[in-house]
Amino acid sequence: MKWKKIRTALLLVVSTTVLAACSFGSSSSSSSKSSKYTTTGSAASGTYEGVIKNGKYQTSKSRGVNVAQNDNTFNLKSFETGLTNVSKKVFSTKSYIFQEGQYLNTSTVENWLGRVSGSNKTGLNPKKGKTNGKRNPIYVQQIEEQDYMKQSGDNLKLHGITVGIGLNSVDYYRKTTDGPQYKQKISDADLRAYGEKAAQKVLTRLRQKKGLKNVPIVIALYKQASNDSLVGGVFFEYTSNSGNQLSSWKELNIENKVFPKASDSTTSNSNGQTDNSTFSNFKSQVQSFFPNLSGVTAQAQYKDGNLSGMHITVTTQFYSETEITSFTQYIAQAASKYLPSGIPIDIKIQSSSEMQAFVYRDSGQSKFSSHVFESY
Amino acid sequence: MKWKKIRTALLLVVSTTVLAACSFGSSSSSSSKSSKYTTTGSAASGTYEGVIKNGKYQTSKSRGVNVAQNDNTFNLKSFETGLTNVSKKVFSTKSYIFQEGQYLNTSTVENWLGRVSGSNKTGLNPKKGKTNGKRNPIYVQQIEEQDYMKQSGDNLKLHGITVGIGLNSVDYYRKTTDGPQYKQKISDADLRAYGEKAAQKVLTRLRQKKGLKNVPIVIALYKQASNDSLVGGVFFEYTSNSGNQLSSWKELNIENKVFPKASDSTTSNSNGQTDNSTFSNFKSQVQSFFPNLSGVTAQAQYKDGNLSGMHITVTTQFYSETEITSFTQYIAQAASKYLPSGIPIDIKIQSSSEMQAFVYRDSGQSKFSSHVFESY
Repeated sequence: MKWKKIRTALLLVVSTTVLAACSFGSSSSSSSKSSKYTTTGSAASGTYEGVIKNGKYQTSKSRGVNVAQNDNTFNLKSFETGLTNVSKKVFSTKSYIFQEGQYLNTSTVENWLGRVSGSNKTGLNPKKGKTNGKRNPIYVQQIEEQDYMKQSGDNLKLHGITVGIGLNSVDYYRKTTDGPQYKQKISDADLRAYGEKAAQKVLTRLRQKKGLKNVPIVIALYKQASNDSLVGGVFFEYTSNSGNQLSSWKELNIENKVFPKASDSTTSNSNGQTDNSTFSNFKSQVQSFFPNLSGVTAQAQYKDGNLSGMHITVTTQFYSETEITSFTQYIAQAASKYLPSGIPIDIKIQSSSEMQAFVYRDSGQSKFSSHVFESY
Repeated sequence: MKWKKIRTALLLVVSTTVLAACSFGSSSSSSSKSSKYTTTGSAASGTYEGVIKNGKYQTSKSRGVNVAQNDNTFNLKSFETGLTNVSKKVFSTKSYIFQEGQYLNTSTVENWLGRVSGSNKTGLNPKKGKTNGKRNPIYVQQIEEQDYMKQSGDNLKLHGITVGIGLNSVDYYRKTTDGPQYKQKISDADLRAYGEKAAQKVLTRLRQKKGLKNVPIVIALYKQASNDSLVGGVFFEYTSNSGNQLSSWKELNIENKVFPKASDSTTSNSNGQTDNSTFSNFKSQVQSFFPNLSGVTAQAQYKDGNLSGMHITVTTQFYSETEITSFTQYIAQAASKYLPSGIPIDIKIQSSSEMQAFVYRDSGQSKFSSHVFESY
């Protein structure tokens, strides 16, 4: 509501200053007028710099397609973050620069995401109908391309691309436009098999494009979480290809969980059980400390069976700025006392309307830092 | 929307773990069972530790009163943050511990905030009616008490209190319950004169309370911003008292501004003009960089005529996580290039629904840090 006010105010403001587009970043050729490219610069170690072209951010040629493809925004966020993480395994953040996908445009991706048919020959999903008496589901739910560049004289040159393919674990559909929603589960084996076949088609098609004949092409498969999940899906395998045929797949053992769980009995491994009760301790501490009921939830990620990071959200009702400050101090202390050490953790502290404070320990840090969002 | 989902899920979760309240913090007497007090510990230098009693946060005895008193939440936030800053001038964060006000309870404060009348003898506002043909406005809009403690053996002992009095620069009122809202402006001279008289009454009343006879009592006067202001009001003077009569007032030269201004002509000092055009440069850079219109606004605070800090909010529409990452990197670079150095600045980067990333430079830091709120 507050923000609406500011936005309204903004629309009334006539900006009287118009400046020429300015470029900065790591461009090595500031003396040359012909260079149109600069980069965003890297804000943190282990992240890619992004491409700025003529002073503007170079957006994806299929910008926005995946927003429409995901009813659960957790799938959108984790797909893109996860794809960047897969890319980092092949293209070092130190030598490569990130560019939003420039080779697959909106209509191409939309066609690929459709069912194959007479009017849509490039659809990666099966034709409408049944196979062995069972409805053919939509397998391929989202596709994203990322480009990885290197400096070449005054310009940037493509040195590799990564394509993520998001595969449904549940396909939601309606028999008629206004009818009820049905769902069809897809087994891990089925979505993997279908995804690998789709990956070969994608590789073949990419190799036919000018500029992609010889660069490394990484393809990664992602299992979409269900629409009611409180955490996104995970990438489960990828392949890095120099030729026209898919190389062997490399397994990614990543698992996402939501804490707290109502019952530990559903947790698949013993690590998850310990982590869940550790988190429950933290939650109880926070809830007993503050007079208003605090919602305390977490997304946790596991790599190769080990907890690798957590995103925690604490929601409660504050009556004053001093309460927010004290609560934040308490959370920082409780976090270092009760939460697992050695992994990145961030904790959003919010009231129902907005984030009020933020406690975090980045990768490689030993202590929690905090920030209260104050206002003058 | 996403958060609603999580909260709904939370309500369904039955927490199976109940732990005894645990205490931590800087209590010096962990061997003694009789100590009921601990502290939140200080999360950042220059902030107070807060009091925890029997494992629970000790809330204010008049908790929530000021929430109801402020139509403009900027006044609520800046009043409390400002009052803490006044306290820091008298009670060092190194030797004092903060406690929410325990001497003025809800009904006392509510009575004080009312008009004086036969049924409300303690009302600090003038009686209903007119003086010299002019309506008597509500001057005193909010009151807050803060307690400052020191460790004394196993216990904490009160060593001083601070009381803030918020005075209207505009009094909003209705002639009938459902009638239109009118407003009555109150000049700086009038609100100051009225506030100083109210302060003497408050001091006299506090001295009559058990436990407050001999401690230092700081009283600070705050000018409320109007309800349509995009920044809160400011404290303009305070007095630190050891006796029953008010000591001399100490001026606080604090000014809040909102950037960008539509026209520089309304800016009162030349510093503000320079800072406004500096900010406009930053805003233009950000807006030309990103394809979607970005709302870029700032609250700026001045102390003794010098810019002392900024809270900036950037709102735009993102289509992917990689866009958020790149935009954040760009903002961090643009901030260090275009924004004034040597002062604390934080920049919230949000989409319409929620905060997506955050760039900040704390007091004493030379470089901007950033954090993207990711999701698994």
